[in-house]
Amino acid sequence: MTTALRTDRYELTMLEAALRSGRAGRDCVFEVFGRRLPGGRRYGVLAGTGRVLDAITAFRFGQAELDWLADERVVDDATLAYLADYRFTGQVEGYREGEVYMPGSPLLTVRGTFAEAVLLETVVLSVLNYDSAVATAAARMVSAAEGHPIAEMGSRRTGEHAAVAAARAAYIAGFSATSNLEAGRTWGIPTMGTAAHAFTLLHDSEEEAFRAQVAALGVGTTLLVDTYDVRQGVETAVRVAGPQLGGVRLDSGDLPTLVRETRAQLDALGATGTRITVTSDLDEHAIAALRGTPVDAFGVGTSVVTGAGAPASGFVYKLVARRDGTGADGGAWKPVAKNSVGKRSVGGAKRAERLLRDGVAVAERVVVDDDGDGIPERDAADAARAEGLTARPLTATLMRDGEPDPQWLGPEGVRAARAHCAAAVGELPAAALRLSPGDPALPLVTA
Amino acid sequence: MTTALRTDRYELTMLEAALRSGRAGRDCVFEVFGRRLPGGRRYGVLAGTGRVLDAITAFRFGQAELDWLADERVVDDATLAYLADYRFTGQVEGYREGEVYMPGSPLLTVRGTFAEAVLLETVVLSVLNYDSAVATAAARMVSAAEGHPIAEMGSRRTGEHAAVAAARAAYIAGFSATSNLEAGRTWGIPTMGTAAHAFTLLHDSEEEAFRAQVAALGVGTTLLVDTYDVRQGVETAVRVAGPQLGGVRLDSGDLPTLVRETRAQLDALGATGTRITVTSDLDEHAIAALRGTPVDAFGVGTSVVTGAGAPASGFVYKLVARRDGTGADGGAWKPVAKNSVGKRSVGGAKRAERLLRDGVAVAERVVVDDDGDGIPERDAADAARAEGLTARPLTATLMRDGEPDPQWLGPEGVRAARAHCAAAVGELPAAALRLSPGDPALPLVTA
Repeated sequence: MTTALRTDRYELTMLEAALRSGRAGRDCVFEVFGRRLPGGRRYGVLAGTGRVLDAITAFRFGQAELDWLADERVVDDATLAYLADYRFTGQVEGYREGEVYMPGSPLLTVRGTFAEAVLLETVVLSVLNYDSAVATAAARMVSAAEGHPIAEMGSRRTGEHAAVAAARAAYIAGFSATSNLEAGRTWGIPTMGTAAHAFTLLHDSEEEAFRAQVAALGVGTTLLVDTYDVRQGVETAVRVAGPQLGGVRLDSGDLPTLVRETRAQLDALGATGTRITVTSDLDEHAIAALRGTPVDAFGVGTSVVTGAGAPASGFVYKLVARRDGTGADGGAWKPVAKNSVGKRSVGGAKRAERLLRDGVAVAERVVVDDDGDGIPERDAADAARAEGLTARPLTATLMRDGEPDPQWLGPEGVRAARAHCAAAVGELPAAALRLSPGDPALPLVTA
Repeated sequence: MTTALRTDRYELTMLEAALRSGRAGRDCVFEVFGRRLPGGRRYGVLAGTGRVLDAITAFRFGQAELDWLADERVVDDATLAYLADYRFTGQVEGYREGEVYMPGSPLLTVRGTFAEAVLLETVVLSVLNYDSAVATAAARMVSAAEGHPIAEMGSRRTGEHAAVAAARAAYIAGFSATSNLEAGRTWGIPTMGTAAHAFTLLHDSEEEAFRAQVAALGVGTTLLVDTYDVRQGVETAVRVAGPQLGGVRLDSGDLPTLVRETRAQLDALGATGTRITVTSDLDEHAIAALRGTPVDAFGVGTSVVTGAGAPASGFVYKLVARRDGTGADGGAWKPVAKNSVGKRSVGGAKRAERLLRDGVAVAERVVVDDDGDGIPERDAADAARAEGLTARPLTATLMRDGEPDPQWLGPEGVRAARAHCAAAVGELPAAALRLSPGDPALPLVTA
């Protein structure tokens, strides 16, 4: 399915005007970055990169799209002719999916003619802004859970397509599973879930419902015990399933107290291996507040799919460098930047490296292209070594001549991103994992 | 495209267990409602209803979905056989799209067997929770703008599919247009947009960029004047386009001051008809703060597509009534409700009416089915008349025997919802339009 109309109208009117002015063919570098971390977060987690590559590949104007643009007189005939042949043939590089980022990190760089690259702005930002908001929130929840599994269960609290992207982003950030079946099918993410209150209410009694669930799903299932009365629900659950009952789920009430009481009750009933899962409007702070209780697993819904108070990452897509032409006659690269109050951009193509001392990240170094060849200088690694630091490159090739590198796509890309996120978060200094608002964990330095 | 896997796994495991227990065929009534209005809002606006009907119609399991469920052993063979033939054949009624709602309003009622109706929970909630969050935020912005047009420009700050739904919901709530082209194509919403800062940076000078834009789009276009210096940008814009310039856009800075200065400058240059559009991280409060300035139009992005601080509406889908069987032998209807702490539900099928005095809404009356026939009593209108009130029915038939009423679908449905929203908000008492946090504008009374 084409993504070409998932686009702001002004991308097309800019194209039309640039085709007329003769500037549409200028080689350009666009950069995705965020100006700040929302809500006093100390780090962000980039997600959506693999989906961006799919969206760019699917950015094609078919006859149906061209007919609609013509009927609505969105652009003129010359522009329609350009769009009919449009296929992105440029270069995309950027941070790996799952990477930790800071304000100003050059997250994605798109190189192509103005015409080619400007059209992609909206869909690139839609994907990265949402997916990274979820991953950034999810990573904090994973830290707060201190090794206990967290399942993503928020499909019902975000758009029906966003739900699939949210499951993917949360998994990349370290969640263990999702309730969303489409995320399981499309991205290979483990799915989970057993029953809701409606299942209990459907039956003549809680006991009948539990017997039905155990008959269908086995004694290893998780029974939801708070439809009527938790204490009685737990007693019934163990009576029906026996002490081998897999788990009970608590979805309401004062959880720290309830978890302790339920653990004691289960143990007294001999169900010492029965796990306790909690799922009631949890966020990273509620998860942290359950540290020290005998909780086994978490399910998180609304807060993770809505970015826990920061539902958009605030990334922008800005022109940072251009040439006067294209190809061999294109001339020198010129950094460009806007000067709008509070919204300045930094000109020049960039790459970045994370500087580490003894395996712990201490800074992020951004290397700006300064000899006009469009290739940022790579002597930063040498400079770092001179200071006794190691430099881990952050910028990878994602798409070459319009072809995505397959390692970043599909379930394989998701698995790689998840592993990479765990490693990148693991490099951060301990203070970065604090949940309280603060400054970004790593300073940005320019080479 | 099927919506069948945009579903939480537990809907399918509940189906499996209910098929085994023999309870899957019980006639059920599920109800969508919200327990509270987020953020101290005084009213909500329901959106997404038309999309819900489309999603229910598209909820079919094809061979690809069945194969995946079988491979993953999500459910057993009997359940797969049921899903292969699944098509919703029940009844859906609810509030019209664009309707104003309160906590506890019975927004949507789905009637069918447990098996038929339980499967729809996730996708129904995904659509309504997101779309209504946007519409509820958008309606406050429309009130704050006091008749000035507002365009929705937030596609880049929400998922790439959610962006289309957001444009639709904002338009229903009274926005004038959207930047999103797919929303224009799919839902018939007017689209708008001219140029971004990149267009100015692409050219050798701001003047060259403005000349290019005017050449392509005419002097009626809107020029973005804050790339370098607003005062110089405005001067250049009028010099290039002449005093017939359609508009200028301000996207940064202290807007109230800047709008006044720009208006004075434009007037001094003879461009007295040139309109001023502002677009810098606006929300309902920033819009209200521009009252009294000579601003002409607003563009709103992040805040509207993320629900202005409340990105999910908090709607739930609860079993409220059931019979012991189905059809003629189904027996009496029984209200059912869970008792979970802080999350209670109210049993019984419901309809609702808005009570008005002299055309102003004073309360919402919820009528619960109490004779067990599954049809709520309709004597509320009589009771209202006895009190000198009029009663406007809020519950409409949306889907009969699985077939949606076409008046709620497509661009026609969107236009009807937009007109209905304007009328429903227009009925509210003046205090309901205050932006400060407060109580719900209308009390709920039960008949």
